[in-house]
Amino acid sequence: MTTKTKPQKTDSSKVFKIVGTRPLRHDGVDKVTGRARYGADIHLPGMLHAKVLRSPHAHARILSIDTSAAEKHPDVLAIATSNDLAPTEGMFETLAGLYESHQYLSNNVLAGDKVLYKGQGIAAVAAKSAHAAEEALRLIKVKYEVLPHVTTVEEALAPGAPVLHEKMQTPSPLPKEMKGTNICVYHKVRLGDVAKGFAEADTVIEREYRLKTVHQGYIEPQNATAYWGPDDFLTIWSSNQGQFWVQHETAKLVGLPTSRVKAIPMEIGGGFGGKIPCHLEPIAAILSKKTGRPVKMTMGRDEVLQATGPTCGGHVKVKIGATKDGRITAAQAYLAFDAGAYPGGYVDNAANSMFAMYDIENMWIDGYGVVNNKPKTGAYRAPATPNAVLGVETVIEEICREQNFDLLDFRLKNAAKEGTRKADGTRNPRIGFIETLEAVRKHPHYSAKHPGKNCGRGIAFGYSGNISGPASVSAMLVPDGTINLVLGSVDIGGTRVGLAQQFAEPLGIPVSLINPQVADTSVSGFTDPSYGSSSAFKSGWAAHDAAQNMKQQLIARAARIWGVPETQVSFEDGIVFHNTDSELKMTLKEIAAQANSTGGPISAQATKNAGGWGGSYAANIVDVRVDPDTGKVDVLRYTAFQDAGKAIHPSYVEGQMQGGSVQGLGWALFEEYAFDKKGSMMNPTLLDYRMPTPLDVPMIDAVIIEVANPGHPYGVRGVGEASIVPPLPAISNAIYDATGVRITDIPMSPATVQKAIQAAKAKK
Amino acid sequence: MTTKTKPQKTDSSKVFKIVGTRPLRHDGVDKVTGRARYGADIHLPGMLHAKVLRSPHAHARILSIDTSAAEKHPDVLAIATSNDLAPTEGMFETLAGLYESHQYLSNNVLAGDKVLYKGQGIAAVAAKSAHAAEEALRLIKVKYEVLPHVTTVEEALAPGAPVLHEKMQTPSPLPKEMKGTNICVYHKVRLGDVAKGFAEADTVIEREYRLKTVHQGYIEPQNATAYWGPDDFLTIWSSNQGQFWVQHETAKLVGLPTSRVKAIPMEIGGGFGGKIPCHLEPIAAILSKKTGRPVKMTMGRDEVLQATGPTCGGHVKVKIGATKDGRITAAQAYLAFDAGAYPGGYVDNAANSMFAMYDIENMWIDGYGVVNNKPKTGAYRAPATPNAVLGVETVIEEICREQNFDLLDFRLKNAAKEGTRKADGTRNPRIGFIETLEAVRKHPHYSAKHPGKNCGRGIAFGYSGNISGPASVSAMLVPDGTINLVLGSVDIGGTRVGLAQQFAEPLGIPVSLINPQVADTSVSGFTDPSYGSSSAFKSGWAAHDAAQNMKQQLIARAARIWGVPETQVSFEDGIVFHNTDSELKMTLKEIAAQANSTGGPISAQATKNAGGWGGSYAANIVDVRVDPDTGKVDVLRYTAFQDAGKAIHPSYVEGQMQGGSVQGLGWALFEEYAFDKKGSMMNPTLLDYRMPTPLDVPMIDAVIIEVANPGHPYGVRGVGEASIVPPLPAISNAIYDATGVRITDIPMSPATVQKAIQAAKAKK
Repeated sequence: MTTKTKPQKTDSSKVFKIVGTRPLRHDGVDKVTGRARYGADIHLPGMLHAKVLRSPHAHARILSIDTSAAEKHPDVLAIATSNDLAPTEGMFETLAGLYESHQYLSNNVLAGDKVLYKGQGIAAVAAKSAHAAEEALRLIKVKYEVLPHVTTVEEALAPGAPVLHEKMQTPSPLPKEMKGTNICVYHKVRLGDVAKGFAEADTVIEREYRLKTVHQGYIEPQNATAYWGPDDFLTIWSSNQGQFWVQHETAKLVGLPTSRVKAIPMEIGGGFGGKIPCHLEPIAAILSKKTGRPVKMTMGRDEVLQATGPTCGGHVKVKIGATKDGRITAAQAYLAFDAGAYPGGYVDNAANSMFAMYDIENMWIDGYGVVNNKPKTGAYRAPATPNAVLGVETVIEEICREQNFDLLDFRLKNAAKEGTRKADGTRNPRIGFIETLEAVRKHPHYSAKHPGKNCGRGIAFGYSGNISGPASVSAMLVPDGTINLVLGSVDIGGTRVGLAQQFAEPLGIPVSLINPQVADTSVSGFTDPSYGSSSAFKSGWAAHDAAQNMKQQLIARAARIWGVPETQVSFEDGIVFHNTDSELKMTLKEIAAQANSTGGPISAQATKNAGGWGGSYAANIVDVRVDPDTGKVDVLRYTAFQDAGKAIHPSYVEGQMQGGSVQGLGWALFEEYAFDKKGSMMNPTLLDYRMPTPLDVPMIDAVIIEVANPGHPYGVRGVGEASIVPPLPAISNAIYDATGVRITDIPMSPATVQKAIQAAKAKK
Repeated sequence: MTTKTKPQKTDSSKVFKIVGTRPLRHDGVDKVTGRARYGADIHLPGMLHAKVLRSPHAHARILSIDTSAAEKHPDVLAIATSNDLAPTEGMFETLAGLYESHQYLSNNVLAGDKVLYKGQGIAAVAAKSAHAAEEALRLIKVKYEVLPHVTTVEEALAPGAPVLHEKMQTPSPLPKEMKGTNICVYHKVRLGDVAKGFAEADTVIEREYRLKTVHQGYIEPQNATAYWGPDDFLTIWSSNQGQFWVQHETAKLVGLPTSRVKAIPMEIGGGFGGKIPCHLEPIAAILSKKTGRPVKMTMGRDEVLQATGPTCGGHVKVKIGATKDGRITAAQAYLAFDAGAYPGGYVDNAANSMFAMYDIENMWIDGYGVVNNKPKTGAYRAPATPNAVLGVETVIEEICREQNFDLLDFRLKNAAKEGTRKADGTRNPRIGFIETLEAVRKHPHYSAKHPGKNCGRGIAFGYSGNISGPASVSAMLVPDGTINLVLGSVDIGGTRVGLAQQFAEPLGIPVSLINPQVADTSVSGFTDPSYGSSSAFKSGWAAHDAAQNMKQQLIARAARIWGVPETQVSFEDGIVFHNTDSELKMTLKEIAAQANSTGGPISAQATKNAGGWGGSYAANIVDVRVDPDTGKVDVLRYTAFQDAGKAIHPSYVEGQMQGGSVQGLGWALFEEYAFDKKGSMMNPTLLDYRMPTPLDVPMIDAVIIEVANPGHPYGVRGVGEASIVPPLPAISNAIYDATGVRITDIPMSPATVQKAIQAAKAKK
């Protein structure tokens, strides 16, 4: 075990009382009855509504913006452009400890001298109604010099491609063949000697893939309401994944100190990574500053699709060599992923995760982030990893088919385990890949009868590295014997109950006695967003520590009340008792009722930023039927497997697995940004941007594997992301099994599949 | 020193850096610009408005309530009566650890089978608008059996008086002559032998006083908005002095567990004791439960005056004996104070405080709480103490005049000091009466030229015992180097800044770096209301402890970052430094910026419920001019003195002293509830209920004395209450000085004064 974490007592066979059960979630009734308040539910006295004028061009220089006519609109109170944001000199320190160009971040909110994608914000109008604001947008006259655009990485890397950012520094040194001035990131992995490795191989297979931009597809559009008070204190209500990042990023973009901004997290109707960055908050803030009134903004679906942060499409090549006896000798990959309009993207994450299932001595990866005229790439569940693993798991499948290897035996032989070197050169702590693989082998779906003619079965594996970060939890004993639990983590699908369970466990009390609250930035300690599969890990650990602290205080208080030494007092299952005198006993309710008068209220807190997070492995078995005439793929049966480390609340782990699988299914089969010749998205509605519906998805069987993470008191691994990694290759493999045709262009839409089948037929 | 408090390091000469300064208050801009949100500023989607049908009779049996016509009103959504409140069996545990009859508390919100005062709530209507609700009130038909009523304690104690509560248990044993069945409280003090004491006296003076009901007169009427969710979780927004009591009391009255209620404290436009009990919250709650929608209620001024909790009027007799050489030998008092419609009141507080200025060996007090047909008596700054001290300080004046004693020398000779036995038999810790007395003597107002013909000067002293209670404070370091301070104490006039100062002191940082927040019941630890002059004491102590905790963490974190032992690191004036290596130094801002990545966020908290509160002494010198024809009294000059222990923020201590003086002035000269023969208040508006205006009040010179309270880390004594105690006797003494006439009926309104002057003239 090489993790640097402080060792925790962990035992995968440890029996917990609260952790691992399936109690009712505290926010359940609120959410099913519509009482839960999302960002769009905000109504404030005197509130204005704002709308954003967005670029009609994919790439253009802004020559002038004339807002004079709009200003005269009787219902318009203010207009903002990038001039109203804070000066953009210098770098911007993000809260992940990274630096980004302040100018790029700011321009992605409201464009500076150029627009870089269709839909980019240019100006915003605050008016008495949303309709008036929209009307006034049409009165703003913008003069553009339209520039040539590029919407794929291939176009952006082509010789003579239009340059998006004249001043952008390209990484150096780049390989000779990569001269593109649109390369913003170059991430390489060099382990062992790949030439030697491929030379040793008996089989070498290389395949090339192309993927389109896809969106997280959360139900709730972005929203933000801001009130900039006369004392320059800014309050923001918005639906997002991390109130502390909203606070920090908006503060920087509007030029306020962080502590002059209060970010109030509303309930969130899906995020999946897409609700980490701020799009509307800074605009609402500056319009409120100008008008002295609260300003509310909500996006339409077309804005969500065209002007937020979808995940990257790109160009992938994967080459793997193996010996006849089933040993992988070398692996090589080329990844070129969209960064979109501004530098960034997640090619490093993909490079570090793509081969994590296997122990590969010789590895070579060249990963490129490429700017092009699409929205700035955002995070989306295991960012960019599905794109890369598509190549890995389909090439593995082809090697097995060529060499008649058993799909699982081959993987088992090459499986990563504790101590295996990872792509970043570090070594694995205890991981659960082999256990996940064996769970697949044991599952009835694996050994079930083949689904028949025109049908196929595919399997694939995947990995997500997960992260942690700072987290804060505080807890207050209420006089009625319940406990208020104040959380900095936004609830993105069972977070409240999962953290309540981790708090309740040391006290041995039911979670119905816990009142979890997602708190704003003024009353909770700092906490990183609910992202990177980190909330149950980091805030859960803090909750565990806070509960241990409260338990100690309860023991001390009982000792004080009874006048006995603390060492004589114990606490178990919500009852404090004297170790030898059976008369001395108090329930949590009894001690809570007298706490205030016996020394004062009992509260506890804990903060955390430890390492120790554990990667999570996932697998899919998928059965499909392919219509040989239309190319339409129906998913018949779907089984998802994942190592959760410890499933705090198995229902929500299953939910995450099912949700990730469905999103992966949509990505594999339907979803894509389609652009016209001008670089305009042609399908910016949910009628045309085809997401999976209940008719497309069978019930997904979710199988949880639990290999405790040694870096967490309950053994938690993040569960939010790994499940989206296997669907692309699993479905590709299933279609291959059904048709004998390998589809390498994603999505594997009816047209693409049908064309590939026709092409294969023509070849025969 | 007999206090049981854990000894604290205190030194009245200790120099503080932040405590004792006058920084800008954090909520100042909000409040002067109108941005601060009071209860009436709440607007929620779908919100209904409710109004209360109130009794037209002072005493009546309710025979029937017919709501059928009102229910048919097209805009009415629900009607509530006492039947909708929780069952009223058993006793109700208040949060001060007392028990009150659940039925009485509940009936004071909505009447049961009887109404006991004009204006008592009977039924409430929730409608689409406040106007519709008012309209519908007129459609409710109530049949009454009107009963005889009593509005003074004398009437209520008279033989054959109507009995308000047939089942009320009168205290036992009562003295023979007190047979009244309307006596609800009997509080007696028996120290030494008063008969022997009076026998030893050379002068014995006894006087009798009558006082009227007066109101706290806060600007902002009571209000409450409630939303009872489908999951039986109740959220309340209201302006009150203690969100945790609102939570507890409303929960009990509507039948919910405490933790199913969240009370959100809005800013408060004055309370002075009157905003401790819940009047509207339970009604809004049950109407919200019935309609499923938020329900808002605000009182009109007439409701505030007739249906909240004003302070008691009553009947007072004081008898004091002294020797020729100026020693008080005995003191006796009879106090009969309104409890109003339901048992309670504050006669015990008055009895324990009235003689606290003096060391009196022989003391005899009979204090009675008497129910009568007026609103249930509420708390009002040093509850009931001004009524009693009026007698003490005017009788002392008369003794001094009779014996030609110097007013200050006589008091000094009999002054209470550390170790003096108090009325409750305990002994004083270090107190500041003598220092207050000496400050009066030294003040230029004391030795100033007499104000002249028809003018007079009066002095008087007073005391308030103050209280403490549970308090919670938590603090989070923000990455920009400021600190969020989460408070359970409602801000009733500088509480935020005063607590921020007490937090800032151990860290040596300016309060502009502190962001104080008054938190709701879900995110703050339990804290008692801002009452009894306790907030600066109890929450200040918790803030001090939380800061010490944070300081230790900052030292530990710096040591960790530098890799040196904690013992080598110090923190002073916002800078952490190595004790010997001058290179190692970090500002709070620098350590805050890296806290999250070097072990996690830094937060601290403290809770408190210690004893140690210290009583506060106050004094007034007042010059008046009395118009001999009209009896109108003009206040010419006013100096107020008070021992603050330690004035955390002298401006707000001065503000408390000035505010208390003005309220005392209004009480002395103008304010009174006037009742007609039916027991109806005749003056339920601020045109007729005469409160002081700026024209009535000269600039009040506030002189702070600081005799550190040994029971608090900064020496704080509560400052909110004592200042209202001396005005009644000081003004009475000044009028006597001007006219030679002793007014014993309060208020000393022009009519009363003129009548007394005429009567005195007639006698001559």
